[in-house]
Amino acid sequence: MLRANDPTLHSWIEISPTSDFPIQNLPFGIFQTHTKTPRVGVAIGDYVLDLCVLGQYNMFELIDIDPTVFNRPFLNDFIAQGKPIWRAVRNRVSDLLRNNNDEICGNPELMEKCLLKMSEVQMLMPVKVGNYTDFYSSIEHATNVGTMFRDPKNALLPNWKHIPIGYHGRASSIVVSGTPVRRPNGQTKAPDEPAPAFGPTRLLDFELEVAFITGRETNHGESILPEEAEDYIFGLVLFNDWSARDIQTWEYVPLGPFLAKSFASSVSPWVVTLDALKPFRVKGPEQDPKPLPYLQLAGEHNYDIHLEVFIQPEDGAENLVSRSNYKYMYWNMHQQLAHQSSNGCNIQIGDMYASGTISGSEKGSYGSMLELTWRGTQALVLSDGTERKFLHDADTVIMRGYGERNGIRIGFGEVSGKVLPAL
Amino acid sequence: MLRANDPTLHSWIEISPTSDFPIQNLPFGIFQTHTKTPRVGVAIGDYVLDLCVLGQYNMFELIDIDPTVFNRPFLNDFIAQGKPIWRAVRNRVSDLLRNNNDEICGNPELMEKCLLKMSEVQMLMPVKVGNYTDFYSSIEHATNVGTMFRDPKNALLPNWKHIPIGYHGRASSIVVSGTPVRRPNGQTKAPDEPAPAFGPTRLLDFELEVAFITGRETNHGESILPEEAEDYIFGLVLFNDWSARDIQTWEYVPLGPFLAKSFASSVSPWVVTLDALKPFRVKGPEQDPKPLPYLQLAGEHNYDIHLEVFIQPEDGAENLVSRSNYKYMYWNMHQQLAHQSSNGCNIQIGDMYASGTISGSEKGSYGSMLELTWRGTQALVLSDGTERKFLHDADTVIMRGYGERNGIRIGFGEVSGKVLPAL
Repeated sequence: MLRANDPTLHSWIEISPTSDFPIQNLPFGIFQTHTKTPRVGVAIGDYVLDLCVLGQYNMFELIDIDPTVFNRPFLNDFIAQGKPIWRAVRNRVSDLLRNNNDEICGNPELMEKCLLKMSEVQMLMPVKVGNYTDFYSSIEHATNVGTMFRDPKNALLPNWKHIPIGYHGRASSIVVSGTPVRRPNGQTKAPDEPAPAFGPTRLLDFELEVAFITGRETNHGESILPEEAEDYIFGLVLFNDWSARDIQTWEYVPLGPFLAKSFASSVSPWVVTLDALKPFRVKGPEQDPKPLPYLQLAGEHNYDIHLEVFIQPEDGAENLVSRSNYKYMYWNMHQQLAHQSSNGCNIQIGDMYASGTISGSEKGSYGSMLELTWRGTQALVLSDGTERKFLHDADTVIMRGYGERNGIRIGFGEVSGKVLPAL
Repeated sequence: MLRANDPTLHSWIEISPTSDFPIQNLPFGIFQTHTKTPRVGVAIGDYVLDLCVLGQYNMFELIDIDPTVFNRPFLNDFIAQGKPIWRAVRNRVSDLLRNNNDEICGNPELMEKCLLKMSEVQMLMPVKVGNYTDFYSSIEHATNVGTMFRDPKNALLPNWKHIPIGYHGRASSIVVSGTPVRRPNGQTKAPDEPAPAFGPTRLLDFELEVAFITGRETNHGESILPEEAEDYIFGLVLFNDWSARDIQTWEYVPLGPFLAKSFASSVSPWVVTLDALKPFRVKGPEQDPKPLPYLQLAGEHNYDIHLEVFIQPEDGAENLVSRSNYKYMYWNMHQQLAHQSSNGCNIQIGDMYASGTISGSEKGSYGSMLELTWRGTQALVLSDGTERKFLHDADTVIMRGYGERNGIRIGFGEVSGKVLPAL
């Protein structure tokens, strides 16, 4: 077991048992305050630990790391130090926070400088995203979409069970949780209209996804085997792949989704390491037919992470509209990364690889409004009595995720975004 | 007229009339030598002018620029200074090189330091590409592809004349001219095969394209009007969008090309500014139906740039296989950028936007092997008697481009890449 994962550990910081951030989690993120420039922090309970300050107090002197990498506006330089270093830093932070250690809590000056209330910091994009891929790896989602838009009897296209289908997405418009999302304008054309029109999307949607972030690069021409993929993955975030369904329908042939997606994607700010998620490993769905050898991998490579989506109307209550689970994924991260690199395409540090919408087999577990309302034919009724076929202006979409095992809850916090009216 | 474009200008450097780089061009690039770290240079005849050295000699002191931006491994920081600064630097370089100026040529020490033979420098990627889009804007190419793969009578899909169709591409694998390109492995499945197989592509192709590089950013949520687009474009490069046709056919539904493209794209190293290309502006093809207002633009926004593709077998001669022209584009750069940003997607400095394959109306002007050999049914015969349906290992593909007006030739140099056998 990883030292920092020990379920018997307790911190000298009081942490609610329902917190996403017990001492066994320790996710990394980037934050700033009125007086602190953007820098690396670790979430612990309701607090953020400032690694930049810990570096200044020589708290990492036994680790082979230049502590100025914590004084950066993105995690990329820290991640680039390599997996042995991420692990050593996470273990060291765990030691500093455990209840038999007084290096911080016995030093009031240091404690005041390095420990901030989470409510008093601003979280920023955790990484500078060089390349972003969006996969399409939930068989339930692909089947639902194929049933609605093509043929219920042949809902999955012939390639789907052979290839972790994906496409390149837009990196520039990935934003951190809390950033409002403007309803996009775009071209749409209903089948019964003679010509397209330009205006605000009428079918604004969310997509519930999880994304992994790579922490090791490959040289151009190299490939990654599925069993090696874990060494290339730093951690995971929640991902809302906002979508404009009417724009998508009109634009997407033959080259795939483009402006229907590129207006915004939102991510949760805390990167939960693959190490912290180890207790939640489970077997994935059986893959039949068997994938080609370059995608084959035995063992437990899915993750049992509960996922929830809420819609909150302006000044209203949160309405739980979907409960899904990351373990439903047909294609796992290892297979996705092996496929992405199988043609020699080089992987870079800070790349983001999203899962695609994660739907379960039951209606309440679908990961998009498109599926939950079955293309707008079955409206959801919210607690205030209003209906939703797709998202309204001023709605806030909130996604949360966590694993729970042996009384330990490892969570992601949330990714939220409020819909602003179109310009 | 822009001062640096004056056709009566001559340089104190002797320049062949067939050179791509007369004093009226002055494209920017990044180079290094055994003793010089990567830095900004300007091409002039057979030479490269080292702007970093010129900065050290205070040659830009009348321009509001920190000359250390020339001492960088990418053009991005220089481009970020803004259009008035690019223009001022290009004008200043033009002045320094004209035959009545002796600030460089009268200073032997400076001249030795700042002027290098092009054959003795190594060119590098000109920009760090944050986002890469590939459009599909040649009507002849889209018609050819639609005719081959779908229906000759309805070759263009219904959206094509309304939308500058495009998709997000992979930024990490864009390489500079001269970089060898490894034949990719991938999944393919012929219609008559029961299951897919994994192995080297058998249908390796080039795509003749031109890409523009943005030099000004927008805020997330903002759009660019077609008439404003010029202010956002720094310059152009030649672009070879290498493609694996058998991988593409199997993978591309429903989300578009992915691994069939992401193994490599090659660019020419010198960024020719939009200013230098001004003399080559021409009207584009008539657009019928009229585009929606957000894409409408009157005037001359296409560019008369001759484009050529050569295949050179190992130790063999160059074979001219295509002559096309950038002026054939149905959708111009301004419309592409207006469309890309119409949903509020933010534009960044150093983004690359490629045209899509540029084919003319005649067979000799097609911009890909797919079209030139009509899906491999009509092999090209090279000067050594060998045939090509698609590219062979050890073939080098070379693309060149230039405009010519009033005896002045403004060229791009070339983008070349040699095919290495699959691993």
